[in-house]
Amino acid sequence: MRYCSNCGQEVLRKVPEGDTLPRFVCGSCGTIHYQNPKMVVGTLPVFEDRILLARRAIEPRRGLWTLPAGFMENNETTGEAAIRETREEVCAEVELGMLFSLVNIAHISQVHMFYLAAMSAPTFAPGTESLEARLFAEDEIPWDDMAFRSSTLTLRHFLADRRRQAFSVHLEDLTAGSRH
Amino acid sequence: MRYCSNCGQEVLRKVPEGDTLPRFVCGSCGTIHYQNPKMVVGTLPVFEDRILLARRAIEPRRGLWTLPAGFMENNETTGEAAIRETREEVCAEVELGMLFSLVNIAHISQVHMFYLAAMSAPTFAPGTESLEARLFAEDEIPWDDMAFRSSTLTLRHFLADRRRQAFSVHLEDLTAGSRH
Repeated sequence: MRYCSNCGQEVLRKVPEGDTLPRFVCGSCGTIHYQNPKMVVGTLPVFEDRILLARRAIEPRRGLWTLPAGFMENNETTGEAAIRETREEVCAEVELGMLFSLVNIAHISQVHMFYLAAMSAPTFAPGTESLEARLFAEDEIPWDDMAFRSSTLTLRHFLADRRRQAFSVHLEDLTAGSRH
Repeated sequence: MRYCSNCGQEVLRKVPEGDTLPRFVCGSCGTIHYQNPKMVVGTLPVFEDRILLARRAIEPRRGLWTLPAGFMENNETTGEAAIRETREEVCAEVELGMLFSLVNIAHISQVHMFYLAAMSAPTFAPGTESLEARLFAEDEIPWDDMAFRSSTLTLRHFLADRRRQAFSVHLEDLTAGSRH
């Protein structure tokens, strides 16, 4: 951020009075421009015993597989975002189940959330940002070609919970160096 | 938003190519300025059988009571945000328990989240944004003087869950007209 979105003049980086962190502050109109983490919301769509994944048609991680998810929009709920992203990325209509995972990725200021989601029919297709959509049985999941750790983690928790038929919410914090 | 934060020229409101929603787009440098929901994170701090609330010293809802919570900052996790806000608003050190509530407030593009939190001693004080901090037993909670519905809802779920000694994650969607 270099210019004030309110008045177009240059911003400075400083700690506003009464605050504890540096912010972009307009030197002209005084507007304080707060910056906050973004939420990425998606689903783990299940048809019978298989899981629907999308192969990314866009960067980052073009060509790799992911659960359908994307940035939450203003004026929608987390549930609406999850349904919308599933529709956009894999053209599937799902019935949302429980909130299943919440993954903090603090070094990129993102929070990823996934809902379990049920498909009533194997109806899906790649959306405009996907190269391919496909249902995977547990032993077919392309672990070495997954795009994002939040998807991988969520899948692993799902498979473990399904094995013991006990599903709970999973919170995870990823760090820049961590591998899962 | 009226000016581009990247180059200082005027922005237009339009649907970028390949997108489905209108965004602020710079007419000069082409930067697309996405706007996304903000997360408000806090705790429900418990000492023995009592709950710690803060009375707000700032607008909105100055003078009313709330669970300690505030906007999540970049480069922190939801858990870190919850602990920090509790420290800032009621000067209390807590041990985080489970993620307990997630409240969508789509008409103001916010997601509120509360963790259960344990206090090992009744040590607290009003922070700079609070007039007062106080431990409340169940029958003392100032229901008519609560600042925000997300706090009220979270308290009600906690008391109900505590009565049956079975705690689960609660997801709620608030709408502009709804009352709780």
